[in-house]
Amino acid sequence: MEIDIECITCFVKQAEKLIHKFVRNKDERIRIMKKILKNSKKFKAHLVPIELSPSIYHELSKLLKVEDLYEEEKNLTNQKALEIKLFIENLLKESGDPFHTGVKLSIIGNIVDYTLEGISEMNLENFIREFEKKQLFYDDVEIFRQEIEKAETLLYLTDNSGEIVFDLVFLEYLQKLYPNLEITIGAKEKPILNDVTLDDLKKLDINQSFTLVSTGSDLPGNQEKSFKKEFLPVYKNADIVISKGQGNFEGLFESSRPIYFALMAKCPYLASFLKAPEKSMIFKKNQ
Amino acid sequence: MEIDIECITCFVKQAEKLIHKFVRNKDERIRIMKKILKNSKKFKAHLVPIELSPSIYHELSKLLKVEDLYEEEKNLTNQKALEIKLFIENLLKESGDPFHTGVKLSIIGNIVDYTLEGISEMNLENFIREFEKKQLFYDDVEIFRQEIEKAETLLYLTDNSGEIVFDLVFLEYLQKLYPNLEITIGAKEKPILNDVTLDDLKKLDINQSFTLVSTGSDLPGNQEKSFKKEFLPVYKNADIVISKGQGNFEGLFESSRPIYFALMAKCPYLASFLKAPEKSMIFKKNQ
Repeated sequence: MEIDIECITCFVKQAEKLIHKFVRNKDERIRIMKKILKNSKKFKAHLVPIELSPSIYHELSKLLKVEDLYEEEKNLTNQKALEIKLFIENLLKESGDPFHTGVKLSIIGNIVDYTLEGISEMNLENFIREFEKKQLFYDDVEIFRQEIEKAETLLYLTDNSGEIVFDLVFLEYLQKLYPNLEITIGAKEKPILNDVTLDDLKKLDINQSFTLVSTGSDLPGNQEKSFKKEFLPVYKNADIVISKGQGNFEGLFESSRPIYFALMAKCPYLASFLKAPEKSMIFKKNQ
Repeated sequence: MEIDIECITCFVKQAEKLIHKFVRNKDERIRIMKKILKNSKKFKAHLVPIELSPSIYHELSKLLKVEDLYEEEKNLTNQKALEIKLFIENLLKESGDPFHTGVKLSIIGNIVDYTLEGISEMNLENFIREFEKKQLFYDDVEIFRQEIEKAETLLYLTDNSGEIVFDLVFLEYLQKLYPNLEITIGAKEKPILNDVTLDDLKKLDINQSFTLVSTGSDLPGNQEKSFKKEFLPVYKNADIVISKGQGNFEGLFESSRPIYFALMAKCPYLASFLKAPEKSMIFKKNQ
């Protein structure tokens, strides 16, 4: 999935929001925005959207002298999601098909990042309930169910904070269902957007049977070419890989190894690439 | 009203739309977008938003080899508005206070440019009727009414195509009410966005008692410093000046001569500058 110009506009819009968040002085804001736009000379037509990211976010980190631009939002979304963890667990337990519901909840978690703005916990619960009633637009859950029956290892590539709580509910369910399944959770190496880093993972109260690793990525998604050396065998040898969110989809959808992609089609460009409606829920194997 | 970074983002978004409109090849689209973004080196904190325009639109005209980027939209909106001219005239005539309604209709015309997308004529009529029921957020109509009673000359600075039909209904009403009032209509010099140019004006069937002039501007708004020599006395000597739309507001609101600004607060940045809600209707004298 290569960039088109709307990806550039989208990144500029996100830069705008971040600059407003950290810079009070108008002239300084414009000075910084100009520096960011100057980086457009690095944009090439064959890049995938997440590869535009360093020229925007890493550069902003430097210019704003803030290492983790979304630290506050990450903590807030984790906190909010943890507050309703029991609700998510009950929704899964009480559903007619907890396995299918678990997949769906992990996808619903993917949309929570930008719906949290200003909504109360009660609204969040309603929002989740509404989406839980909807169908997956691509639904490879049955293939996944058959495969996991025989699998010994599962690698789960995380996306956003907040969402991670939904992921953990799903993974804890899978662990109970398949006690012999070895589950590894792969997070980002360094802070990028609101993505979960290995350090973020370690701060959460996570089932000790899960192995936590860093993939090596400092982009808002994973790409095979940017995996760190120690992570490569984990990725190659896992019986099943589940990839969460749009960034991981962008970077891995064309990979040669089989991967399940679980995400919400949040952006119009991705939705049209997937031939899916915006905000539809996707659970799709790449081959 | 000086730019902030959201004005930059907004212009980038508009460039994106135009590039998609004219360029089929993705690599070529990215090449052109990068050229546009390179122009950001010209952006300075004290510019008013319309002054960002040449680096975007004039540059796009050159790169795309299209002189009038919005020719099609201009013709379409004029055509649609002309089809309902009688409806607008009747709305004015049948209202309890045609003078006040005329002001309001001219402002409603200012929002028609971006509501026309995909709406039928019937919806357009409903849309106008809905807005006609609403109050002006700033309402200097009574001061204007008192002033026009004594005025000999009125200069009317136009904004968009489509909107111009609403303006003409209002001006024809004023002409009937004040047969001795000399009305001059000032349009842009060269194509810029969907703004009415002097050439566009001449193509319309306009009451021959009106004088049609170009202000000299090739920006999507007028500024005193960019008026052409021949236009300056028209502007200086007019008893009353009415300025339509956001671009003219940006360029003229801080002028030393009295001007009535008639516009819809279309963009969030302008709305916050005016301390008005978005989409509110403004009829405000600058002093």
